[in-house]
Order: sequence, then structure tokens, then C-alpha cells
Amino acid sequence: MSDSKRVQNFNPGPAALPLEVLQRAQAEMTDYKGTGMSVMEISHRSKEFENILQTAEADLRGLLGIPANYKVLFLQGGASLQFAMLPMNLRASGSADYIVTGTWSKTALSEAKKLGAARAAADTEADGFRSLPAALDLDPKAAYLHFTSNETIHGVEYSKEPEGPPGVPLVCDASSDFISRPIDIAKYAFLYAGAQKNAGPSGVVIVIVREDLLGRTPANLPVMLDYRALAASGSLHNTPPTYSIYITGLVFKWAKSLGGLEAIARRNRAKADLIYRAIDESGGFYRGHANREARSLMNIPFRLASEELEETFASESKKNDLIGLKGHRSVGGMRASLYNALEVEAAQSLAQFMREFQKKHG
Amino acid sequence: MSDSKRVQNFNPGPAALPLEVLQRAQAEMTDYKGTGMSVMEISHRSKEFENILQTAEADLRGLLGIPANYKVLFLQGGASLQFAMLPMNLRASGSADYIVTGTWSKTALSEAKKLGAARAAADTEADGFRSLPAALDLDPKAAYLHFTSNETIHGVEYSKEPEGPPGVPLVCDASSDFISRPIDIAKYAFLYAGAQKNAGPSGVVIVIVREDLLGRTPANLPVMLDYRALAASGSLHNTPPTYSIYITGLVFKWAKSLGGLEAIARRNRAKADLIYRAIDESGGFYRGHANREARSLMNIPFRLASEELEETFASESKKNDLIGLKGHRSVGGMRASLYNALEVEAAQSLAQFMREFQKKHG
Repeated sequence: MSDSKRVQNFNPGPAALPLEVLQRAQAEMTDYKGTGMSVMEISHRSKEFENILQTAEADLRGLLGIPANYKVLFLQGGASLQFAMLPMNLRASGSADYIVTGTWSKTALSEAKKLGAARAAADTEADGFRSLPAALDLDPKAAYLHFTSNETIHGVEYSKEPEGPPGVPLVCDASSDFISRPIDIAKYAFLYAGAQKNAGPSGVVIVIVREDLLGRTPANLPVMLDYRALAASGSLHNTPPTYSIYITGLVFKWAKSLGGLEAIARRNRAKADLIYRAIDESGGFYRGHANREARSLMNIPFRLASEELEETFASESKKNDLIGLKGHRSVGGMRASLYNALEVEAAQSLAQFMREFQKKHG
Repeated sequence: MSDSKRVQNFNPGPAALPLEVLQRAQAEMTDYKGTGMSVMEISHRSKEFENILQTAEADLRGLLGIPANYKVLFLQGGASLQFAMLPMNLRASGSADYIVTGTWSKTALSEAKKLGAARAAADTEADGFRSLPAALDLDPKAAYLHFTSNETIHGVEYSKEPEGPPGVPLVCDASSDFISRPIDIAKYAFLYAGAQKNAGPSGVVIVIVREDLLGRTPANLPVMLDYRALAASGSLHNTPPTYSIYITGLVFKWAKSLGGLEAIARRNRAKADLIYRAIDESGGFYRGHANREARSLMNIPFRLASEELEETFASESKKNDLIGLKGHRSVGGMRASLYNALEVEAAQSLAQFMREFQKKHG
């Protein structure tokens, strides 16, 4: 299998995984550590899976420096189900504040509004979701303040957390910049992330919750929507997505082997710099979507002069094994996603391709 | 990798998968069909994944003979999340009836009661969940009648559907005997099954719903809990568990290659007969949990004379590479799960082991 083809994968998620993770999974596929079974075939109550789950959690705790008074959960349904579970559990009464900076935070707010009171503490849609809000209109009694640290579609990222009123728990959808850089978890009361960008395959969402928030869960929630019950069972109330957790655990191990989140952040910065330089030095041939101060290191949406030229870019880049560069329909144009597993060489290839494409079509 | 060890896997779920499915997944791990990416790394909006999803659905429709007026969904959260979604969507008002024949139907009822009115149309707990109910106390105006076709823990299975009042939709949790035999889907209004017994890895639950029931979904449900919205998006509202769906699709293909559900049912009957014969011919050394007429072809819980002897059975069988035979704590003793992917030879090995164990310890 050593002659299998590999491409430069700029997919926005599901996205590139480290080759060594895939090779390890491949080697262990029919016989996990001498059990004579695939990880998919072992019981979620077995000591082998218990070890997979505990190791994944311990490695994540190490990577992010998660304090002891936070629970880590591995759940299903993606960040989208969290949009509903969050207000169900954490907003027993009152209203919650949402900072709206792109499609995902907008959707999180609209889901929260279905179930009770929620308001926008800021909304940058009027400027096309290109910026971070200059000011926040905060409810000092909000049940929580929610923000999306990186907007995958619009390429807008918080490089440092917004500040809420004292005592209002900060809640973060970190799906698309999870474990891409160090953060101070103690500033967060609740953080969630679908794995399928930086942390693994789709089918598992990671929730990090400060224990005192579990006291807010109202009685009689369905158990699969009840953070308190899910935390009490250690993500094992029912059968968890065992294989997705296994792969996610291998990705955490790999992230540690790179030197942890400081090293990963440097690498991600270097990759993003390559692409932003190609944009900024193009004299307007490439136009980034986000304003400079809000630029994401993970997702870089950019436009060319015409849709026709964008089509040509998409097809020529694909021919060069640069995959997944077509932008989201709501922004149009191109988008380069540079998640953890993307190698620096891939970003170099793309930057070079962008310059050559400009020479040819500029 | 041809020298990798394999065992006889009697796990209750996650459970044995066909070796050829695992080998195919292994071969395609780093490069799916020349894409240069793993299935885990391709977009859920790509034509490759679209093809995986559509093929899985088409093969399942073929296997079960699903009529055109039913939708097939691939969702997350297991059957346990369906316990909540069902009443949220299908019981806009009124009460739902549940036939309680074991742990799983009991749990389904208790989850439904959290959210509104629900009642037991029968409950066999008083006899230790060994039987199917002799009679049902049916609500002719029930929103639906729910039953669990196979109780994984107690080994009690419906060989034919219970009959409800005219016009009351029949709803079935088929998690642990899904695609184990032909059924007449037209008798069901709604059927759901966690994949991790007969159909694939954990992390995906299959829902088959008659289209007219989608009209019952109330306004303003969170989208991830809204069957109508999930059906409208073709299981692609958000990122689905792509790898689990891929493996499930390979299992459907394999099931077709065995000759479809008639052939699979014969094979499953043969495997179960081997174990039940070993029990019945043991003169009471082995005692099956379920009454004869309610016996499951999928899960066979049985006891020995003492817990000490059961411990010995568990450890000796394990030494013989017969894995996963320890019973659920609520029933105790042993349990042999004989899902589709378990080979007839494995059931023969277990039956032989049971006779030899009896000779030695009887």
C-alpha cells in the first residue's frame, strides 16, 4: 500500500488527517493490539476501549492544559446538536448572549431562539461577516456569552477571547480552530468542537465543561441531551462513536509528538503567512474576504476578478492535486483550509501555484 | 498483515464485522479510489461521499424492500437519542403506547414519559423479561405503538410484528436484529436501528420513516432533532458520520453478496440452533433466560449453576479465543451474540466448547 496516491488536502472539513495516523489505523484495522478484533468490533465497555477513551482524554487535557474542575465529553451530533443542547442545559431561565460573526454563530443564535430567549450582543452581517465587532452590547445577566472562535466559511477568527460581563460564563464553538494554538481554558466555562477539522473524523464532538455549569441542567431532559447525565457516565451512557474516538485519540498523540500547541501554532502561522502573502502581494488579483485584523489562520476565503476565473482556478488547482479549494457558496470564490494536519509543504505548493496562476492569467 | 490474529467475536455490540469489509477498508484507508484521500478526509459534499451515501441507501432499500414512500436517514446519537426524538416528532399531542419486553423498551418508555404522555401497553418485567406479552392493552387513539423487535440484554425477540389498533402507526426499535431476516416494512410506520450490531460500527443510527409521519413534526424543533428537516436535507444538514456510513455501506454490500436477507436469516437460524441445542441437550447444566417461544436468534443469554462456574466459563472460553460471552450485569451469566457477521463456524466452535466444558465441569 506504499504506492497509494496522496494529495494536498485543503478541504474545510472533513479534512486532512496526519498520514501516520491513517497508517497506524490501517495497520491495526483487523487486529487491534493482539485482540484479534478491529477497534470497531470491541466493546465500548472493554478495557481496551476504556484505555482508548482515557488516553484520548488525558492527551487532550495535556495539550490544552485543561484544569481538573472541567469535564471532557466525547459526544455525537456535531456542533449543530450542541447549538440546541447548550440552551437546553445552561439557560434554565433568562436570556443568552451571542456574538454573531459568521454563518455558524448566526445559526447557533437562531437555534437558541427556538427554545427560549437569546439575543445578539453584536452582529457583523451588515459588513458581510468580514470583521470582529468593535463593541459588544452585553446583557450583564445573560445565562452565558457565546462566541465562535473561528468562522469556517467567512475566515474570521478571534485571536483572543472576547470579554463578557463579570460572572457571565463564556461559551465557545471552537470547531474549526480547536487545538490549533494554545488557549487559556480557565477563561472558558464551556467549549465545544466538532472533531472533523483539526481533531479527527466526523461523528464525534468534544465538549469541555466547567463542572459547576452541570448544576444548571434542568430535571427531566432526555438523557442524550443532558450534560449532567452524560458527564456522570463518562461519555458512556450509550455506545459512543468508538472508532471516531480512536482516530481522534491518535490525532491527539500526533499533536503531542509535534511538540504541543505552541509548536503547532507556529506551524499554522507559517502556513497562513504563505497564503496571505500570496494574496497581499498579488496587487488585487486575489482578494481576501476577511479584514486584515480578523483574518483566520485556519480558513482563508478569497476571490478572483470573475467567477469564470475562479472556475479556472478551481479546475487547474485540482489538476495539480491541490484539493478542496472551492469556496462555500455563500461567500463564493476560493477557500484554503489549513488545519493542523496540512503540511507546510502543501501551503508552499499552493502559494507557488497562486503566483504561477496569476502570471498566466493576470 | 495477513498474519494478523482474528478471534470468534460474540460481542453484543459493537460487534463482529465481516473480515472482507475490514480488509477493504484497510486497503482503501489512505487512498479511497484514487482520490489520494481517506474516506475520513473527503468532504461530505463531494461526489465521492454522495456516491457512498446513495449506494448505502440503495443497497439497504434493496435488502429490506423499502417502499418509495419511506425515507432512509443516517443519523447520530444511537437509538438512545431516537428515544427522545420519536416522541418529540411523532407525538405532537396525545399519548403513545409502548410494549415493554426488556431493558431497551423500558428505557424507551421512560424517555418518552419525560416529554409527555406515554403508557405501557404491556410489561413483562414481573416475569424477568423472559416472554412476549400474551395480550396488549392498547390505546386506540395512541400517537403510535412502539415495540423493540429484539431485546439485546434479555434475548427476547418478536418473530412477527405485534398488531396495533387500526390507524395507529407501528414504531420499532430494531437495533439488534436489523437486517437479520426479511421483514415487511409496509407494516411499519417508523423503524430505527443503531448500526453497531448487524450493520456497521457505532456512531450511526438508521431511521426508516414513512413520509406521511414527517408531517407530524412540530414547528421550531432544533434542526438536529427534527426528522422533517433531516429528511429534507438527505441526512446532510450537517456533517454526517461519514466513515461509519462508509463501513455500513460496505456491510450492506456484503449482506447482498450473501444472497440477501432470506439467506442471512437461514444462516442466523442455523447458528442459533447450534447454541440452543447445546443448552437444551445439557439437561439443565445451561439454562436459557428467555422462554422458548420468545427466544432471540441474535442474543442468547444463559446461566450456569453458580456464579463461580460462570466465571470459569468466561475465562476458559476467552482462552479459546471465544470472545464477548460474559452476560449483561442485569441478567448475569453468559450471553452469546450471533449477529450477521459471525460465521457459522464460530457458533459451531462455541457449541462444541459448551459440550466440552459441561463434560469437564458437569
